[in-house]
Amino acid sequence: MPNPTAAMLVIGDEILSGRTRDANMHHLAGELARAGIDLKEVRVVSDDGDAIVAAVQALRAAYDTVFTSGGIGPTHDDITADNVARAFGVPIDVREDARALLEAHYARVGQELNKARLRMARIPEGAALIDNPVSIAPGFSLENVHVMAGVPAIFKAMVESVLPTLTGGQPLVSETLEIRRGEGDIAGPLADLAERYPELSLGSYPFQRDGMFGANVVIRGGDGAQVAAALAELQAAFPS
Amino acid sequence: MPNPTAAMLVIGDEILSGRTRDANMHHLAGELARAGIDLKEVRVVSDDGDAIVAAVQALRAAYDTVFTSGGIGPTHDDITADNVARAFGVPIDVREDARALLEAHYARVGQELNKARLRMARIPEGAALIDNPVSIAPGFSLENVHVMAGVPAIFKAMVESVLPTLTGGQPLVSETLEIRRGEGDIAGPLADLAERYPELSLGSYPFQRDGMFGANVVIRGGDGAQVAAALAELQAAFPS
Repeated sequence: MPNPTAAMLVIGDEILSGRTRDANMHHLAGELARAGIDLKEVRVVSDDGDAIVAAVQALRAAYDTVFTSGGIGPTHDDITADNVARAFGVPIDVREDARALLEAHYARVGQELNKARLRMARIPEGAALIDNPVSIAPGFSLENVHVMAGVPAIFKAMVESVLPTLTGGQPLVSETLEIRRGEGDIAGPLADLAERYPELSLGSYPFQRDGMFGANVVIRGGDGAQVAAALAELQAAFPS
Repeated sequence: MPNPTAAMLVIGDEILSGRTRDANMHHLAGELARAGIDLKEVRVVSDDGDAIVAAVQALRAAYDTVFTSGGIGPTHDDITADNVARAFGVPIDVREDARALLEAHYARVGQELNKARLRMARIPEGAALIDNPVSIAPGFSLENVHVMAGVPAIFKAMVESVLPTLTGGQPLVSETLEIRRGEGDIAGPLADLAERYPELSLGSYPFQRDGMFGANVVIRGGDGAQVAAALAELQAAFPS
C-alpha cells in the first residue's frame, strides 16, 4: 500500500520578500519522512486571501493531508484562519473554548485580552483545536487541513500535537554514499542500478567543494535489505 | 505601475524528504526584491514529470516570470528539461551550441563527454542558453521560464546572468522596527497605521527569545519618504 501523501502551505510575505529564511519546511519534511508520510508538494504564498483560498482548495483535493504555517496571530496581516474558512465555505467566529484558553492565559500573565488578541480565538465552524503549549493561542484542524503558527517553536509544538493523530505509512530507510566523482561519471552505473531496483528511489545530489565536484547518492526504500544490497553494489562500483 | 511578478519552482525530492535544506529560494527572493520584481509564489515539487509540467504551466500563466531550480544534471533523476519542453509542447534534443560548450569543457579538463553528460546539452526548441560559469552545462530560458541548476553556486551564477535581461520595477524600501511587546499589544496601533498608509505594506513577524515575546514590524513601500514617516509614527507609539 502506498504511503499517505501530504502537502505544506507556507503563508507569509516575509519568506517571499527574502527577509526571513523559512525553517518550518525543513522541519516538517523530516518529521513526515520519519512518520512514513510522503511530502509531495510545498507552496509558499503571500498574505493574500485569494491566493490562500486557491492553494488550500488545490492542495487538499490533491493530497491526503495539508499543513499550513503562518498567519494566525493577532495582527491585521494574520488572515489565514478567515481564508481557510472561506476555502471550506464555513462560517468563522470567536469560539468559546478558544476564548476560554486565551482568557485564562492572559489573566495568568497579567495582560489584557484585547480585541486584537481575541482574533486568535476565531475558529472555523467544525474545526478541532490544536494545542499550543508555547503561547496558548491554538491552531486548528478542519477535515484534512491543519492550520499552524509560523513561529518555529510554536510550529514544532503543533506538529508534535498533530502527527500522532495521523495514519502513518512505512518509514523510509535511507542510505547516502558520497562519491567524489563528477555526476557525469556516476550517471550511467546509477541509471543501471535504478533499473534493477525499481522499488527503490535513487537520487543524486551534486555538490561542489574545494573546487572538486562530487555527489551524494541517496538510496531510499521501504525494504531495508534492498537498500543495503543496492548500497553495496554502489560502493563496489565506486570504491572510495 | 505595479511591479512585475515572478514565481519560483523548486524541483527536488531531496528538499521534500527533509534531506536538504533549500538555499536557493532565500537567495532568489532577496535578489528579486532588490530588482523590484515581486516574488508572489514558490512551489516545491518532487522529481515527477507530471508535477513539473502542471506547475510550469500554472505558474507561467499566472506570473510574468518563472524561475526553476534543480533537475538539469546528467543523472536519471534529472528530468526538468524534458518536462519543461513537454509543458510548452515543443521538441527537445541535443543542441549543437550546447554540445560544443560541453565538448570544449570536458576536453579541457580531460574527461569524457559520455552519454550521461551529453544529456545536459538537451535544450528545448526555441530556448536561449543561460551561461554557467561554474560547471559550463547551461541552463535555458524558454519564453518567460528560466531553467536553472539546483547546486547553489551554479544557481546563483545563473540568476546573475538572467536578472539583467529582465525588466525590473521599483525596488522596495524596507525598514524594520523590533518591538519587545506581545503582538497583541502591537496589533491595534499597527492596524491603524496600515489604514492611514494604504500604499505601504506593514508586516508583523513575531519572535520568541529568552522567554520574551516580541515582533519585528516591517514597513515596505516604493516611496522612501512615506516609509520613513510611518516608521517615525511607529517609533513614537512604541518607544524602545
